[in-house]
Amino acid sequence: MPDFAKLDAFLDETETDGYLIDADSTDSDQYYLSGFDAPDPFVTLYDGETHLLFPRSLEFGRAKRESRAETVQRYVDFDHGELVEEHGPDAAVSRVLARFLDSYGVDSVAVPPRFPLRTADRIRALGVEVTADTDGTITEIRATKTDEEIDHVRAAQRANEAAMGAAAELLAAADVADDGHLTHDGEALTSERVKEEIEVTLLRHGCSLDETIVACGADAADPHDRGSGPLSAGEPIIIDIFPRDKATKYHADMTRTFCVGEPSETVREWYDLTERAKRAAFDALEPGATGEAVHDAVCDVYEDAGLPTLRSDDRAETGFIHSTGHGVGLDVHELPRLSPGGGELEPGHVVTIEPGLYDPEVGGVRIEDIAVVTEDGYENLTEYDERLVV
Amino acid sequence: MPDFAKLDAFLDETETDGYLIDADSTDSDQYYLSGFDAPDPFVTLYDGETHLLFPRSLEFGRAKRESRAETVQRYVDFDHGELVEEHGPDAAVSRVLARFLDSYGVDSVAVPPRFPLRTADRIRALGVEVTADTDGTITEIRATKTDEEIDHVRAAQRANEAAMGAAAELLAAADVADDGHLTHDGEALTSERVKEEIEVTLLRHGCSLDETIVACGADAADPHDRGSGPLSAGEPIIIDIFPRDKATKYHADMTRTFCVGEPSETVREWYDLTERAKRAAFDALEPGATGEAVHDAVCDVYEDAGLPTLRSDDRAETGFIHSTGHGVGLDVHELPRLSPGGGELEPGHVVTIEPGLYDPEVGGVRIEDIAVVTEDGYENLTEYDERLVV
Repeated sequence: MPDFAKLDAFLDETETDGYLIDADSTDSDQYYLSGFDAPDPFVTLYDGETHLLFPRSLEFGRAKRESRAETVQRYVDFDHGELVEEHGPDAAVSRVLARFLDSYGVDSVAVPPRFPLRTADRIRALGVEVTADTDGTITEIRATKTDEEIDHVRAAQRANEAAMGAAAELLAAADVADDGHLTHDGEALTSERVKEEIEVTLLRHGCSLDETIVACGADAADPHDRGSGPLSAGEPIIIDIFPRDKATKYHADMTRTFCVGEPSETVREWYDLTERAKRAAFDALEPGATGEAVHDAVCDVYEDAGLPTLRSDDRAETGFIHSTGHGVGLDVHELPRLSPGGGELEPGHVVTIEPGLYDPEVGGVRIEDIAVVTEDGYENLTEYDERLVV
Repeated sequence: MPDFAKLDAFLDETETDGYLIDADSTDSDQYYLSGFDAPDPFVTLYDGETHLLFPRSLEFGRAKRESRAETVQRYVDFDHGELVEEHGPDAAVSRVLARFLDSYGVDSVAVPPRFPLRTADRIRALGVEVTADTDGTITEIRATKTDEEIDHVRAAQRANEAAMGAAAELLAAADVADDGHLTHDGEALTSERVKEEIEVTLLRHGCSLDETIVACGADAADPHDRGSGPLSAGEPIIIDIFPRDKATKYHADMTRTFCVGEPSETVREWYDLTERAKRAAFDALEPGATGEAVHDAVCDVYEDAGLPTLRSDDRAETGFIHSTGHGVGLDVHELPRLSPGGGELEPGHVVTIEPGLYDPEVGGVRIEDIAVVTEDGYENLTEYDERLVV
């Protein structure tokens, strides 16, 4: 059960009657606030208690059983049919929403930054005050994990390590063809083949898969390129896996960079430098430090070595061109930010530390662990070694 | 390449300068309009041409290579850093957005119904007119598929059939324990075990997995229950699979109901009735017919047999308690709707036909095919037989 004391305080401070979400449960704020998993959008009102509103009856029974809401209602409970006949389908929805809010005495609501505009305009037109919550209060609450949530991340990370191990084994067992491409059992060893191995392993461990990155050579020089095609010996291969546990919905996140055979001198230097940058970040990681300070520690290491960062050049397209890390939980990217402007870290923040270097001429190198900020520093949740050459 | 003539017409008609989306590419309208796949939100402006705006540099290189946009820009291209120093981070983003729109002479935009409120309020405050497009123009355009898109659905459906076949084989090979539970290779055959088989099969066929439903007994009486735990002989087992092809991002969708051993007389009657309802729906499926008419054909069959539907009782919790079908494409649920209010069907609409009956005392029965509306009727894209008893 999440702690909504911060939400109560927020509503008090802003003199707002309630917090309103209109989304399906792939929106993690919705899932967190409603405690209910549904594929189609529904409305959650929090006014000290939690109330759900569904367009149709489909989820009604399950919501009554599974959600943590005090009340569960449907459009039909607010005379939706009659309102459609009288005012048409669009105005009917507006009126149902207004009646729903009115039934709890709610005249003003705060909503998440990405709350749907049409719903906001509908209820504004009927006199309800709607304020986009620029700080994303629920998202902020989600940043601080309970022990149970940390255990969920830890469990997902164990599955992640099994998948990384399976990928590393595949690389270690690869042969090198005359053209330098890797082969396995006589077939080309491609990015796609390694991803399939990773994904099947995750599935067998109860995780669903967002994307997975297995990127070699120039592909790896683009931090978000998922990679494709043949893998080559002597080139760095970035493997970034971020599974979601299907039962708990919590993510893990880890990256390793491997090279089958000898890497270039530059890649070896980059790897050593990136390990050093990672240690510097962890040295800075503690409650009270800012996300920006942890990011700065990484930039210092790279800039001292004469490499570009976005801090030294905000248009840099090579070097260290992303942030140092991000929160991980129901979303694979969530608060806090370990980047410029990243705020104060607190015990219970689960974050990645993932320095990396990129250049299409060289390839990419990235090493990423996941850790939780504790009362007196951090606990690294990652149990997987670092080894460039396989 | 999608046909944006309807979007041009919409902008003309509404005298709006452009269409604006702020979302990541899991929002299918964003993916469709931008032609770009990215995990973090970005902005797409369509004003006859397509323009992308990214907060950071991370996706910049890939967007220039992969998207169909005429121009790709970053916040930094609109002096974001200076604006942050002068006005603070929040106002800086507003000003970047306003400068971006202004650089294309855009003073008024239409946006999707679920456009993020904060972005809308930001640019409204700077004088840009923002109208929530209640009809979801891009979503409407997406409903009509090109031949290439239909081929993508067809390919996903082949993977779907392989997965359904793997599940059916597992059921057919099951033994029945003394307590009526199914076993396989000496272990309990659970919903989870069958789902794993389905999901691994989909993965091997290049599909990623949203959820899969394998629901038995009372679980199956709730159309959205994914099912869990042991499967039992003599009870209907609903298997509903809706994979997404990882390469094309298009979905398929199919449901079958199986029974290991003899079902109850009621289940057999429901199955026959549901096959009849499905035929009635297909008989009504043609261009010019409305989605509502196809839905009514199903309701007629069930109501004539004395069973409740949401049409006869809008609070029904047993009987036929969902709509007859929905469009399938980049989203597994999209336009058109085969339900009350569902509009006119057109060639190129890809829809499911999925009548079903539910009662916790009996279980659930659902049969679902996927088809495309053609010039002279429809083509059923499903190549999988119907067989209750395995």
